[in-house]
Amino acid sequence: MRTTTGWQAGGDPVVLHRTALERRDLRADDIAVRVDYCGVCHTDLHALNGHSPDRPPLVPGHEFTGVVTETGPAVTRFRPGDPVAVGNIVDSCGSCPPCRAGQENFCREYPTLTYQGTDRHDGSTTLGGYSREYVVRDAFAYPLPAGLDPAGAAPLLCAGITVWEPLRALGVGPGTRIAVAGLGGLGHLAVKLAVALGAEVTVLTRSAEKTNDALQLGAKDVVVSTDPEQVAAARDRFEVVLDTIAVAHELKPYLGMVAMDGTLSMVGYLGPVTVEAMDLLIGRKKFGSAGSGGRPATAELLDFCADHGVTADVEILPSARVGEALDRLGRGDVRYRFVLDLSDLS
Amino acid sequence: MRTTTGWQAGGDPVVLHRTALERRDLRADDIAVRVDYCGVCHTDLHALNGHSPDRPPLVPGHEFTGVVTETGPAVTRFRPGDPVAVGNIVDSCGSCPPCRAGQENFCREYPTLTYQGTDRHDGSTTLGGYSREYVVRDAFAYPLPAGLDPAGAAPLLCAGITVWEPLRALGVGPGTRIAVAGLGGLGHLAVKLAVALGAEVTVLTRSAEKTNDALQLGAKDVVVSTDPEQVAAARDRFEVVLDTIAVAHELKPYLGMVAMDGTLSMVGYLGPVTVEAMDLLIGRKKFGSAGSGGRPATAELLDFCADHGVTADVEILPSARVGEALDRLGRGDVRYRFVLDLSDLS
Repeated sequence: MRTTTGWQAGGDPVVLHRTALERRDLRADDIAVRVDYCGVCHTDLHALNGHSPDRPPLVPGHEFTGVVTETGPAVTRFRPGDPVAVGNIVDSCGSCPPCRAGQENFCREYPTLTYQGTDRHDGSTTLGGYSREYVVRDAFAYPLPAGLDPAGAAPLLCAGITVWEPLRALGVGPGTRIAVAGLGGLGHLAVKLAVALGAEVTVLTRSAEKTNDALQLGAKDVVVSTDPEQVAAARDRFEVVLDTIAVAHELKPYLGMVAMDGTLSMVGYLGPVTVEAMDLLIGRKKFGSAGSGGRPATAELLDFCADHGVTADVEILPSARVGEALDRLGRGDVRYRFVLDLSDLS
Repeated sequence: MRTTTGWQAGGDPVVLHRTALERRDLRADDIAVRVDYCGVCHTDLHALNGHSPDRPPLVPGHEFTGVVTETGPAVTRFRPGDPVAVGNIVDSCGSCPPCRAGQENFCREYPTLTYQGTDRHDGSTTLGGYSREYVVRDAFAYPLPAGLDPAGAAPLLCAGITVWEPLRALGVGPGTRIAVAGLGGLGHLAVKLAVALGAEVTVLTRSAEKTNDALQLGAKDVVVSTDPEQVAAARDRFEVVLDTIAVAHELKPYLGMVAMDGTLSMVGYLGPVTVEAMDLLIGRKKFGSAGSGGRPATAELLDFCADHGVTADVEILPSARVGEALDRLGRGDVRYRFVLDLSDLS
């Protein structure tokens, strides 16, 4: 086994402790990655909040960038020194229809998650990117294109791909009228990506103070979702509403803004959803959901971001301040994604 | 005023009584229609079940065919003797965005329904097609194309258009893999129309006995939705699942059969719907709803049906047997639509 250092959950209440971690010796198709930057995702917060001593070990982190330090004998895609990125999936069955279609996020045997997943070979629990080294199957690592800032690129691997897949699947492009609800880690990337795709982007937000931020990200307009007049004026206006709000919420005002034959796509998982069917029937509207992404779309996203100069707006903290990052994320005090700098780990 | 005869709700329990009814004198843009055939819709059953003496008068019936008997002075589209059809909408505001887009079913001021609607001019309650004469604005009547059997065509005006609009909006055509859930009035027309559009149609039914019926309607295949093995084998199989089931039901098994990026479209209104978001997220699926139709699509449907020889499979009863028709519809004992022959009314 190899050893590294990372931030592991423990104690009551649960906090993250700096700990020595074991990584597996490289298999033939593995690479070892020196983790430089790891984004702090809402999923990390949920995992920590749900953690208890009887659960498998928890080291969060599933959107990171770094440098390849070593490669297994069968690896041809990477060499030591290559900049690399890893997202929230590190393996999948590879043979079910979704995997064959390049949608490993929908693997019928469930994809192996980057942390608290179960390794398909040795049954161990995966430990995430809040650590200085990660060992991953080369097929689930992505070359980081030249020109992409590695800190700003880290959130593309989870927040970015989670909004990219529905944007692409819903055909967002030049002229599409799209609204992005929520302006956090996912939302701000959705705005940037939709703008770069040529769409006409509106931000739906509860706080009018975010107007300037939204416009600076490239949005043409803002609708304050708590203002009934503004919501009424935006009725039936958007072919796509991408809902990135991270807490359970009423869908009715957002469905009302969807244009005829349009779609409200909710990204991420917030539990069961109840819809008044008449809010869909009138206008023949659709409600969908999406999350994470497959390998081809992730590679496409990274290339697109390199071509269009898109990265996340990040606040970089030394990894020792991970507690502060999580605390502020929980309060919504982030513009727009915390990224941990892991260079303070040995 | 004009007088005619029809079937009006009254009594406790509510039944339909043969009664003299008043129709308005023709306005400049009205036509008078001798109603020959009127379909019996689930909506009629719901309206009767919800009726009480303190409610506006109820004469059901909103899918009918007949012959023009008289025209107002401004009418140019029809002449006495023309075969004609009327659906569930007889007027709308005409100026809101959906109306301007030819989707009067989504009129923002609510369309005037064929029965228990409120006339936009005199405020009277509209009385439906279970009667020998109907007076309607010419713009909301449709020439019945030559060659369409008037009894079999009547259900096209509600059941037919309700499935036609989502079929068209979802791009169902040659090669589309579509499943139709439920094989009643709407479902059997959905099968016929999807087959005529060139799609590969599967019927989802709870009763294996409907297999032969489904195949005779043109379906290639049947999945018995109560058989877990068949449902599992059909996982992710259909780009479109058109759900015509007339009672509230679990969506989970049907969502499971939707292909990646596909849509489950529920037609008609069954109240609020709760969806486990993970059933949509895995496969980036969508859930939508649709009902009724606008004028352009209705005209298109009638032309399409004339071109492709599609009409409903109907059981024709003299209107005096309307109680029997409603009773049997309530028990699901119909293949596939009852149509009342109004010639027994004077």
